[in-house]
Amino acid sequence: MAEAVETLDGWYCLHDFRTINWAEWKKAPSNIREEALEELKNLYAKWDEIDSNKNGSYGVYSIVGQKADLLFMHVRPTMDELNELEIEFNKTKFAEFTNPTYSYVSVVELSTYMAKDKDPETDPAIQSRLKPILPKNWEYVCFYPMDKRREVNDNWYSLSMEERGKLMYEHGMTGRKYAGKVRQIITGSIGFDDWEWGVTLFAKDVLQFKKLVYEMRFDEVSARFAEFGSFYIGKRKTYEDIVPLLEV
Amino acid sequence: MAEAVETLDGWYCLHDFRTINWAEWKKAPSNIREEALEELKNLYAKWDEIDSNKNGSYGVYSIVGQKADLLFMHVRPTMDELNELEIEFNKTKFAEFTNPTYSYVSVVELSTYMAKDKDPETDPAIQSRLKPILPKNWEYVCFYPMDKRREVNDNWYSLSMEERGKLMYEHGMTGRKYAGKVRQIITGSIGFDDWEWGVTLFAKDVLQFKKLVYEMRFDEVSARFAEFGSFYIGKRKTYEDIVPLLEV
Amino acid sequence: MAEAVETLDGWYCLHDFRTINWAEWKKAPSNIREEALEELKNLYAKWDEIDSNKNGSYGVYSIVGQKADLLFMHVRPTMDELNELEIEFNKTKFAEFTNPTYSYVSVVELSTYMAKDKDPETDPAIQSRLKPILPKNWEYVCFYPMDKRREVNDNWYSLSMEERGKLMYEHGMTGRKYAGKVRQIITGSIGFDDWEWGVTLFAKDVLQFKKLVYEMRFDEVSARFAEFGSFYIGKRKTYEDIVPLLEV
Amino acid sequence: MAEAVETLDGWYCLHDFRTINWAEWKKAPSNIREEALEELKNLYAKWDEIDSNKNGSYGVYSIVGQKADLLFMHVRPTMDELNELEIEFNKTKFAEFTNPTYSYVSVVELSTYMAKDKDPETDPAIQSRLKPILPKNWEYVCFYPMDKRREVNDNWYSLSMEERGKLMYEHGMTGRKYAGKVRQIITGSIGFDDWEWGVTLFAKDVLQFKKLVYEMRFDEVSARFAEFGSFYIGKRKTYEDIVPLLEV
Amino acid sequence: MAEAVETLDGWYCLHDFRTINWAEWKKAPSNIREEALEELKNLYAKWDEIDSNKNGSYGVYSIVGQKADLLFMHVRPTMDELNELEIEFNKTKFAEFTNPTYSYVSVVELSTYMAKDKDPETDPAIQSRLKPILPKNWEYVCFYPMDKRREVNDNWYSLSMEERGKLMYEHGMTGRKYAGKVRQIITGSIGFDDWEWGVTLFAKDVLQFKKLVYEMRFDEVSARFAEFGSFYIGKRKTYEDIVPLLEV
Repeated sequence: MAEAVETLDGWYCLHDFRTINWAEWKKAPSNIREEALEELKNLYAKWDEIDSNKNGSYGVYSIVGQKADLLFMHVRPTMDELNELEIEFNKTKFAEFTNPTYSYVSVVELSTYMAKDKDPETDPAIQSRLKPILPKNWEYVCFYPMDKRREVNDNWYSLSMEERGKLMYEHGMTGRKYAGKVRQIITGSIGFDDWEWGVTLFAKDVLQFKKLVYEMRFDEVSARFAEFGSFYIGKRKTYEDIVPLLEV
Repeated sequence: MAEAVETLDGWYCLHDFRTINWAEWKKAPSNIREEALEELKNLYAKWDEIDSNKNGSYGVYSIVGQKADLLFMHVRPTMDELNELEIEFNKTKFAEFTNPTYSYVSVVELSTYMAKDKDPETDPAIQSRLKPILPKNWEYVCFYPMDKRREVNDNWYSLSMEERGKLMYEHGMTGRKYAGKVRQIITGSIGFDDWEWGVTLFAKDVLQFKKLVYEMRFDEVSARFAEFGSFYIGKRKTYEDIVPLLEV
Repeated sequence: MAEAVETLDGWYCLHDFRTINWAEWKKAPSNIREEALEELKNLYAKWDEIDSNKNGSYGVYSIVGQKADLLFMHVRPTMDELNELEIEFNKTKFAEFTNPTYSYVSVVELSTYMAKDKDPETDPAIQSRLKPILPKNWEYVCFYPMDKRREVNDNWYSLSMEERGKLMYEHGMTGRKYAGKVRQIITGSIGFDDWEWGVTLFAKDVLQFKKLVYEMRFDEVSARFAEFGSFYIGKRKTYEDIVPLLEV
Repeated sequence: MAEAVETLDGWYCLHDFRTINWAEWKKAPSNIREEALEELKNLYAKWDEIDSNKNGSYGVYSIVGQKADLLFMHVRPTMDELNELEIEFNKTKFAEFTNPTYSYVSVVELSTYMAKDKDPETDPAIQSRLKPILPKNWEYVCFYPMDKRREVNDNWYSLSMEERGKLMYEHGMTGRKYAGKVRQIITGSIGFDDWEWGVTLFAKDVLQFKKLVYEMRFDEVSARFAEFGSFYIGKRKTYEDIVPLLEV
Repeated sequence: MAEAVETLDGWYCLHDFRTINWAEWKKAPSNIREEALEELKNLYAKWDEIDSNKNGSYGVYSIVGQKADLLFMHVRPTMDELNELEIEFNKTKFAEFTNPTYSYVSVVELSTYMAKDKDPETDPAIQSRLKPILPKNWEYVCFYPMDKRREVNDNWYSLSMEERGKLMYEHGMTGRKYAGKVRQIITGSIGFDDWEWGVTLFAKDVLQFKKLVYEMRFDEVSARFAEFGSFYIGKRKTYEDIVPLLEV
């Protein structure tokens, strides 16, 4: 029986993917569309305020391909707030013109395989990683959920903590090469959703996602132990960006 | 051929997950919505009476993420009552505004790997575990179904009863660390539904679900033998809580 | 190359699972609902006659949980009759208020691993097992399809007939403990549907399904060689039982 | 690296499975239904002419169970013709009352593990197998797609051509026992559709499908190397048979 | 830990598969259909201009079978352009008569296992492979996504770069036999979509796809390391081809 490494848990996280029902949106009378946009504008304003007050953070992204049209990503101090904001969104006029396609419930997580010499409760660097403000200028987003394998010869949860730490360290070294190119938020979802972790990456150059994920696949921890869910790729959209996107 | 451990079986259990059809709910005339809420109120009252008379128990939960909006969980002395209550619910006005997304049919189960020195038919502690009243103040719920693996080198059903008992004991020790933080109801579903067991957890702090399930994953019984279905996470809603949630 | 055991094949079998479209059913004018029930009554009468004349047999069951609301199970001397009766059902008014959710096409099958000293064409016991009349007083039904594994170390179809016979004999011994508690109809579906066999169990006490299937899982033939599909659990409904079930 | 065996490729093949939307069909005014049947009659006539001129062949089958109601199977000299005929069908009035449920795109294929002493371009027996006319009196049809496994110890594509030839020969011997009972058309679909081969069987006695597929499962080539998709079973319907089937 | 081979990345690529809603298309008034075709004509004209200016490229294909009716394939210098063009398409009248069925997001990729003696930034042959103009006269298209396996004994990402290079070289030799018969565009999608690579093949004779993919399956790199997604097969359609296809 291997020992579980302690995790540090921060803000709760909801990824809410939606498609736009374009046929219905186009068919709607213009005053209905205006009403929907007005409500959406108010939500953006509310979310912006929470974001600037560091009571949570959010990002809205236009997703490429048919898996989704939009991603609404929220981090908040409590699970209750996530539930409230999804219900609030579901009640809007705009939501009537969207269909849910995928969602992910998790919590920002830092593993402690490495440096444990700081007090996470007070250390500002750790605190800001646990309560992340989503980057505004790193416009591209990449999201995917993942598991660690539990197969006969490749069983992550049967490795010793030392072995796991070593593999994670090596993996971190690959990540470090992308410092300044890719930022990541790791969220844990064991007990919350169907995969064990969610990975959300941000970049200014969308190609860096491919380079990073490709290079990491050769790390032993990925090659032997990682199982991946669906990949979603998108670009940040402010309210000002969304208006022309939705203009019909 | 390994020997099956005897199980104690208690009340039957139905997990009924539903999404709300928000667009239709908002479009409905207010008298229809009032009628639907009135019927729902009556159901709550009926279920509360059964609950206080210890003729069964129930909980209604708001689920986070798109997998469902609501979970109606019921435990009852007979399978017939489960079938009757789901038909009764399906006939309500409120049900017309919901879509079924997942359900689980099982029966409360205690395995007897350990302590067998009491008469389960009369022992009050065992009886109250077999006929559980769902906790009212442990507001958060987590549900997931699971199997034990039957693979060449990791075949649970080929282990001796002694080995299985030892692994389950170790697993129980991990659970015991969470006493006072997480309560669980294990329900058996072999022959009733698509997974072998359902696990329903209750907590006052939603983070404890993640901590418990994460830590348990390192137990040999989980690491080598467990297969997990979807995870659902939610919060208890009384009728008084549901009214504002459904206000549009 | 292992040798195939000979099978005895009897009546053809269709399991037809359906959900009820409750919203549409409630919305329908009462004369339409009456018309639908009248047609359904006639079908029941027709099926009852076939059943009493031993030209086939049937059962209608209310299924617990969201996978289905109703199961229509039919056994008939020919595949053509199954196709005709499903087309006849599809043309009814009542069918318009249901949605198909799952079906299974198979043929009653007896394997000949054991006793081969009787002439199956004339032996009354074998004949009545090949042309089964569904029990009327064993009200609960359990259905699941299954495969035998073909994996490197657990390949059923590479075992010798002797080994297979031994494992099936052991399995039969477990079943025999449930004589008087559970009856079974095994139907073969290789070449007819997506799994290799369908198992339909009947009981007076629904808990016996769980006890039997649980205990059997420890038999080597199940532990090492069985793959299971979805499990459906329900209760027999005569026309007299269906009327109140459908009353809205 | 194993050597690929040469294949002989004949006519292209489309299996087009559809359900009938019975509720809409019944609701349609009788003149619309007549118009739809008239168009369908013309299609049948057109297909019959192609069939009798040996410019292709077709069969329409009523499928048992919920997976489909009808199968339209076509073989034609070119892929273009398959695309044209599916578009032509999609434009008919009758198609509006059906929903596509599954399709399969492949090409008639003969492997050359055995006898290579004839010139396939001129040998009449080979030519008629490559350009098959679907049997009219072998009324029952069985279709399933399949793969050859590529697993560590059971990797078909790593076997030598000699080993593969030997296993296919053995398999052919099992098939030969069913001469006069079951006819088969093997179509290759590597590069065309999601499985590697499609198997279409024809019989006068539907039970022979089960007997053949069951017996073949014990052949080493199936036991160790075959993966199967869904099985569809049906019965040939001429236009004269379809009219009463569609009468409501 | 194996070393990742460097990749050269070119234009971004979107495969957008759609079915046509024939029933709605036929029901639409002719002026609506004309309007839809007019918009589609303008899109074709716009895409043609981009194509001839080598600012990107595109192809529209009629797909055989039910998986899709049409494939819109686009390559463009930036991911943003892909997102913009899918939104532009979604806003058209024609899009209202289609349903999305599958999409794939990737980027043209050349691996560098072989020849590294040229400067990819300036070499014209490499540049034209990174920024491919889709062939106009190679009318048939075949698309499928694929992964390299990461299993215990068949783990691509644990092989040394030398071993991978050798297997890819062998694979390339098989491909070379099809020079003049099949052209290919390999696109990488690690981090962008659910499979690791997309393969798009073009041919003048559709049968060559089957021959190539079949023969390659025996290459060790495919036999042991490849996992394949769905296969789509179609034929190029200019605007002039689409008009009769859509005529109802």
